Amino acid sequence: MEIKPSMFIGVHGGNIISFGSGQPDLPPPENVFSCLSNYREFKYGLIAGETKLRDTLAKQNPGFTKDNFVITNGASEALDLVLRVVAKPGEKVLLHKPYYYSYKPLIEMNNLKAEFVETEKGKIIYEDFEEKVHGCSAVLINSPCNPTGRIQDISTLKKIEKITKDLDIPLISDEVYKELIYERDNYFLSGPHVVTVNSFSKTFSMCGHRVGYFFSNDLNIVKKVIELKTHSSMNTSTVGQEMAYQALISPKDYIEKQRKIWQQRRDFIYKRMLEMNFDVWKPEGAFYIFPKIDNPKKFVLDMFQKHDVITYLGEWFGDNERVRFSYALSEEKIEEGLNRVKKYLEK
Amino acid sequence: MEIKPSMFIGVHGGNIISFGSGQPDLPPPENVFSCLSNYREFKYGLIAGETKLRDTLAKQNPGFTKDNFVITNGASEALDLVLRVVAKPGEKVLLHKPYYYSYKPLIEMNNLKAEFVETEKGKIIYEDFEEKVHGCSAVLINSPCNPTGRIQDISTLKKIEKITKDLDIPLISDEVYKELIYERDNYFLSGPHVVTVNSFSKTFSMCGHRVGYFFSNDLNIVKKVIELKTHSSMNTSTVGQEMAYQALISPKDYIEKQRKIWQQRRDFIYKRMLEMNFDVWKPEGAFYIFPKIDNPKKFVLDMFQKHDVITYLGEWFGDNERVRFSYALSEEKIEEGLNRVKKYLEK
Repeated sequence: MEIKPSMFIGVHGGNIISFGSGQPDLPPPENVFSCLSNYREFKYGLIAGETKLRDTLAKQNPGFTKDNFVITNGASEALDLVLRVVAKPGEKVLLHKPYYYSYKPLIEMNNLKAEFVETEKGKIIYEDFEEKVHGCSAVLINSPCNPTGRIQDISTLKKIEKITKDLDIPLISDEVYKELIYERDNYFLSGPHVVTVNSFSKTFSMCGHRVGYFFSNDLNIVKKVIELKTHSSMNTSTVGQEMAYQALISPKDYIEKQRKIWQQRRDFIYKRMLEMNFDVWKPEGAFYIFPKIDNPKKFVLDMFQKHDVITYLGEWFGDNERVRFSYALSEEKIEEGLNRVKKYLEK
Repeated sequence: MEIKPSMFIGVHGGNIISFGSGQPDLPPPENVFSCLSNYREFKYGLIAGETKLRDTLAKQNPGFTKDNFVITNGASEALDLVLRVVAKPGEKVLLHKPYYYSYKPLIEMNNLKAEFVETEKGKIIYEDFEEKVHGCSAVLINSPCNPTGRIQDISTLKKIEKITKDLDIPLISDEVYKELIYERDNYFLSGPHVVTVNSFSKTFSMCGHRVGYFFSNDLNIVKKVIELKTHSSMNTSTVGQEMAYQALISPKDYIEKQRKIWQQRRDFIYKRMLEMNFDVWKPEGAFYIFPKIDNPKKFVLDMFQKHDVITYLGEWFGDNERVRFSYALSEEKIEEGLNRVKKYLEK
C-alpha cells in the first residue's frame, strides 16, 4: 500500500492521536473570529491582496512597502507561484535535505529539477552548498526547518546570502516558523535577490484559512507573480484576508504565549524520546521532531491502521530512516501517543 | 502604455462606472453571511474539499458522488490544476476564439500551446474544430461564453462531445455561467472524458471568496489534481467552503430571481447598444456584451483615464476589433456609463 500526506491531511476525531499535520491545536486570537459577525464583502479584491493587510505587513517589516507584498493561498501557493516565475522547465532548484515534503513535488510538477544539499544533523554542509549552487536557477532555504526542527547556523546563512547575491540567484526563504524559535535569536535572510515566504497558519493558528504571503525587493518577481495569479487563482479569499488582518493587529502577547507553549512541549517530547532511547536531534524551532525508527514505512502504517496514531514518513521529506512527529498537541496527547508507540516498539 | 486586466480587477468606488470585472453587484443569499457569527474552525481541511459541500454538489448533479469533486480557489484554480495534470509541456490545448482572457496565459504559463477554433458571431465553426482537434491533449469549451455572451448550438456541443470521446481527449467544460442563460434550455456536456468546471462566484455573487470546483468521471484526473493541490495550495479556505455550502442550501428562488434581473439588464443594454448603432451580437447568456469599436485600445484607455468608465479590451480575449462590457450593474449605472461612451464617441 502506497502512503502519502494527502491521506492524512484534515483527518482527525475519534480515538486518533495525530502527530501528523503541522498545525497548532490552540485557536487563533479571538478577533480573528469576532470580526466575522459584521462581514458583508463579496466582490473581487486586488490580485496582490487587500491594501490594509499589505500596509500592516510592510510596517512590521521595515524597508518594505505594500508594493513588495503579494497575499497568497497559504505559503504553499506563494512557493508554487514564485517557482513558476523564477525558473523555466528543465532548470535546477537547490534545497537542503531533509526538506518539507511539498518542495520536491512542487519543483517536479513545475518540470524543474531538484538538487539537494547534504546536511549533518539537519545543518547545511556549506562546502556542499557552495559546490552545487552554481548553475541553479533558485535556492530554497527553510530555517527553522520542517521536518527537522533545526535552525541553520547564522554564519552559514550569511554565506548563503552572499554567494547567491554574487551569483544573482533568487534566494527563496521559507520563514513560516520564524516566530517559533527556542535556542537563539532568529536571523532573517535579506538582500535584493531574496524572496521571503511566510504565512498566518503557524503563527496565528489559521491553517485551514489558507492565507500566506511573500515579499521581495525584486519587483520584477512581484509583478510576474501578480500576472500569473490573475489567471491561476485571482485574489486570495477576501474574508480570509480580513481574518489575517485581525490576527496581525491582535494583542502582541499572543505570539509570545504560543511560543512558550511550544517550547514546553518541545522540552517534554524531546525528554520523553531520549528516555525511549530514540536517535533524535534536539529541535531548535518549529514544532517537529524527527527520530530514527527501524522500518519506518511499516511503523507509520501500523501505527495508523492498528493504533490510531498518525505520524509522517521520513521518506516524504527525503530521509528513509526517520519519521516526523509534530508536537503541536497537548502534553496529555503527546504522552498517550508516545505510550502507544512504546507499546508497539516493545512488541 | 500597456493595459491589462490586473490593472482593473478590484478597482471601484468614486465616480467610476465599471463595465469591467464580470461580477454581480447584488449580494449573495443572506445565510452566506449569517453563518459566520458562530464560525470557529481553524484547522486544515481535506484537500478535495469539505465532505458536506461535495455531498451536496453531488446530489445536485445526478450520477456523481463526492469522490468525483474537488473544491478549488475559484474556477481559475480548477482550470489551472486540470491543465497542469492533463497536458505536458509543448502539448496543444484547443479553445474557441474569442476566449476568456485567462485561458491563453494559463495555457502558455503552463508551457502548453493554445490552438484556436474560429467562430462566426461567437458560434463555433464545427468543421474547423474537427480539423484542429486531432493531436490536441485537451479541449476547453465555455458556453455561455465570456466575453461574447453567446451559447453554442446543441448540435455542435453534441458533435464535440462525441469526437473528443472517440479520440479520448479530455473535454474541459467551463460552465460558470450555466445558470445564466436566456434563450433556451442549457445543454451540459457529459461523458467519461468530461471535466466540468464551475464556481460559486457568478451564480451566488461570491467572486471575492474564491470558491469553485470541478467534477469528472475520470477519477485519474481527480486523483492527480488532489496530489498537485496538496502541494500547490492545500485545502480551499474552510470558511469560504462553509459560505459556499450555505449558498447551496439557500432558498432555490435566489438563482431564478438573479436570472430575471440579468435578463432585464441584457435586454436593456442590448437595446441601447442597437440604438447607438453598435455592431453587436445578441447575448444569450452570462452578463457580457461585445460590441465592435474603432481603435479599441484608445477607447478603453480614454474611457478609463478621462471618463471613469472601465471596459475590457477585446484583444485580451483574442479579438482586436471589439470591447467587452459586463452588464452586471444597475440599469441606472448602465445608462450613465453608456451616456459617457456616447458623448466620447460623438466627439
